[in-house]
Amino acid sequence: MYYPEPISKLVDSFTKLPGIGPKTAVRLAFFVLNMEEDDVLDFAKNLANAKRELTHCSVCGHITDTDPCRICDDRERDGSIICVVQDPKDVIAMEKMKDYQGKYHVLHGAISPMDGIGPEDINVPPLIERLKDEEVKELILATNPNVEGEATAMYISRLVKPSGIRISRIAHGLPVGGDLEYADEVTLSKALEGRRDL
Amino acid sequence: MYYPEPISKLVDSFTKLPGIGPKTAVRLAFFVLNMEEDDVLDFAKNLANAKRELTHCSVCGHITDTDPCRICDDRERDGSIICVVQDPKDVIAMEKMKDYQGKYHVLHGAISPMDGIGPEDINVPPLIERLKDEEVKELILATNPNVEGEATAMYISRLVKPSGIRISRIAHGLPVGGDLEYADEVTLSKALEGRRDL
Repeated sequence: MYYPEPISKLVDSFTKLPGIGPKTAVRLAFFVLNMEEDDVLDFAKNLANAKRELTHCSVCGHITDTDPCRICDDRERDGSIICVVQDPKDVIAMEKMKDYQGKYHVLHGAISPMDGIGPEDINVPPLIERLKDEEVKELILATNPNVEGEATAMYISRLVKPSGIRISRIAHGLPVGGDLEYADEVTLSKALEGRRDL
Repeated sequence: MYYPEPISKLVDSFTKLPGIGPKTAVRLAFFVLNMEEDDVLDFAKNLANAKRELTHCSVCGHITDTDPCRICDDRERDGSIICVVQDPKDVIAMEKMKDYQGKYHVLHGAISPMDGIGPEDINVPPLIERLKDEEVKELILATNPNVEGEATAMYISRLVKPSGIRISRIAHGLPVGGDLEYADEVTLSKALEGRRDL
């Protein structure tokens, strides 16, 4: 026994977090011991509350503490455009941009036959239901630019196309501030493919 | 507002930990949302318990959940040797080695006139008291090999020397598995200075 039990338990808890190995966990646990008691109790409370109070929005699937979430509930936003993303973090990235005024649909994953994940396993069926009920004019597919994300976008696109809703995919190309010299060939090929007339 | 309040509070708590910036804090907070509820509640409990149940041993100053700590209370250990370290983590490092069977004294810092830290501000006076009460034959000064650690070792050594207790300082030199080529000159100079006859 190297540590008193309360420390070793805390170290174990920290080790469960991603990117935190045993040494960092020990460092964090000892840091906690030197923190103000109020801060530590707040931390504990925030952990429990985050898990208890947050749920998925019954409309779009985004993480929220109200149902429907604030974005779905916002009448100022344009309900005729839905942006489909894989993850709640993607919604947050989009919201940071502040340019997009439509609504969202969070899939919580992507279709991946290799991992046995089909369209029924992610939040696709509620999206289809939503398209029947709501007056949606455009669906922006903003799944990740990788194999699973592309497959998911393709699947949704084929499923929804017959309904006549406009379907778009976010552009792939060189990131702003990037350097052509260091771009990988797939990105470069996508950038060339997606070129626009000036 | 990008995050529901329970998330942003949790992100704030994570940001207070060392080495965790805003992006990592967000990643950890979202990870927590996907963890099993039991694990999260355990984590919260472990945090609060670590802070509440742990105290400093009244004898040696090590972090403990019993007073005196298990090391001070262990009759199998040799009470005639005390190893003086700066930090509870140093005790744990020493204990991992499993070679040392004496007791400890944790200073919780080092003398640093630049920062206004004198011997009275760290756990030195209780050490002097301890040396009066207990039958100590050797004091091993294992403070860190830097300016503050050396100054602290020197201070304690001068203070205790008249009592006739043997005082030693842990060796400084090349780390095992290290490479002479890459050693800094101070370490190399210490290694040369501390050379032993074979």
